[in-house]
Amino acid sequence: MTQKILFRHCDPAGIVFYPRYFEMVNDAIEALFSDQIGWPFEHMHQTHAGPTVALEATFSAVSRHGDVLDMCVSVERLGKSSLQLRTEGWCDNQLRFTVVNTMVCIDANTKSTPWPKSVRKKLEQLMGPQE
Amino acid sequence: MTQKILFRHCDPAGIVFYPRYFEMVNDAIEALFSDQIGWPFEHMHQTHAGPTVALEATFSAVSRHGDVLDMCVSVERLGKSSLQLRTEGWCDNQLRFTVVNTMVCIDANTKSTPWPKSVRKKLEQLMGPQE
Amino acid sequence: MTQKILFRHCDPAGIVFYPRYFEMVNDAIEALFSDQIGWPFEHMHQTHAGPTVALEATFSAVSRHGDVLDMCVSVERLGKSSLQLRTEGWCDNQLRFTVVNTMVCIDANTKSTPWPKSVRKKLEQLMGPQE
Amino acid sequence: MTQKILFRHCDPAGIVFYPRYFEMVNDAIEALFSDQIGWPFEHMHQTHAGPTVALEATFSAVSRHGDVLDMCVSVERLGKSSLQLRTEGWCDNQLRFTVVNTMVCIDANTKSTPWPKSVRKKLEQLMGPQE
Repeated sequence: MTQKILFRHCDPAGIVFYPRYFEMVNDAIEALFSDQIGWPFEHMHQTHAGPTVALEATFSAVSRHGDVLDMCVSVERLGKSSLQLRTEGWCDNQLRFTVVNTMVCIDANTKSTPWPKSVRKKLEQLMGPQE
Repeated sequence: MTQKILFRHCDPAGIVFYPRYFEMVNDAIEALFSDQIGWPFEHMHQTHAGPTVALEATFSAVSRHGDVLDMCVSVERLGKSSLQLRTEGWCDNQLRFTVVNTMVCIDANTKSTPWPKSVRKKLEQLMGPQE
Repeated sequence: MTQKILFRHCDPAGIVFYPRYFEMVNDAIEALFSDQIGWPFEHMHQTHAGPTVALEATFSAVSRHGDVLDMCVSVERLGKSSLQLRTEGWCDNQLRFTVVNTMVCIDANTKSTPWPKSVRKKLEQLMGPQE
Repeated sequence: MTQKILFRHCDPAGIVFYPRYFEMVNDAIEALFSDQIGWPFEHMHQTHAGPTVALEATFSAVSRHGDVLDMCVSVERLGKSSLQLRTEGWCDNQLRFTVVNTMVCIDANTKSTPWPKSVRKKLEQLMGPQE
């Protein structure tokens, strides 16, 4: 997923205001669930939800208005009902940021619940072979 | 309601990015319903909603980071299930913006429905005597 | 330009929170300047700016999470240093919203200034033949 | 600093959308610099900036529309040109979130530079006696 840095992302210093990065990361994760996992958020939220319970971010270089970022989401760890996703933003072979989200699958009563089987299977495929 | 122009409101030109004004206006209207009308949005949304169906805005002078705006919401017109609110933003005796929102009261089935009586009464008081 | 309604656009009622529409409209206008007019905002803002000074919006039908909107920007009026753009959002042949922005071209001293000739020419082409 | 959870903070699940937390945290840090350190962001940004370079967040309990959060910012570590701030959000004696921001003081050329002496002194006072 590519994301051009738009006017609305930038702060008075002309660089990305970091809460906007988390909106981009959320969009990238939403696209992953929709395009690769086959469980779009708009379906998920009819019966479940996947809130972020913890997050670590490193902003290693600034991004400016007009930069085009390549965003890459990968599965870092898959638990029974938890999931750790790493999103990296790159521009011109330079790493701009890394965000690691820990999400939990919850049901309609906000209790944690295992990922549905078909979702789990896709997530495992995305992880690739583990040794 | 006063609102200081914060870092997050401003764009690369150092002035308020206009979609942020609409967040401020929404906050001011939310405060009006909570503090003066006695129907906080968090209660309203259990059974009703009040979506904005039309809006007119004029940005007459720019606002910069650090400016402190006085925001004043007044009732411009009250229909059976509609409501027109005017929000003005002032700083140092200078009008910065005017936003006129037209809202409609809807029920849980998203059909328009009359404003509850107690809400209507408060809105009428806010309008003041009409000739 | 198409825009899927994402999680971050929606409010507790599950529909688009209207300030988010103005971010989408700004993105669509930014894409117009970048892709069709050849004056990307990131270049424009080195010497000029194009603030919105007035705006009218009508939200004729709600949009929900997962809807895919077609957004269409057209030139409604072109003045010496002003510009009126109409952005319509459609989904399934239903008009969801219309936003008319009035922008002004300003220079580095925030004085209004004529649109650059090459920009004016492109804007005129976009207007099509006028009778 | 208290912050009521407003309509605009919440997602379709009726809870705070986590990127909005970072806007609140940024507001709280901006208030700290303005009210307690005496270096408001709007002054700082004339000659310096204080970008967040890393961040860790834990969301230990959800917050809903209408909740009133007490936000408390404390100095966790003070380096020559870096600063670690911990922001906690509490409601009804329940910890809702913890965000630890690592900021760096930079000059107009985006090079890291020591905190100004008066700022450093205030930050040390906020840390309290260290053993």
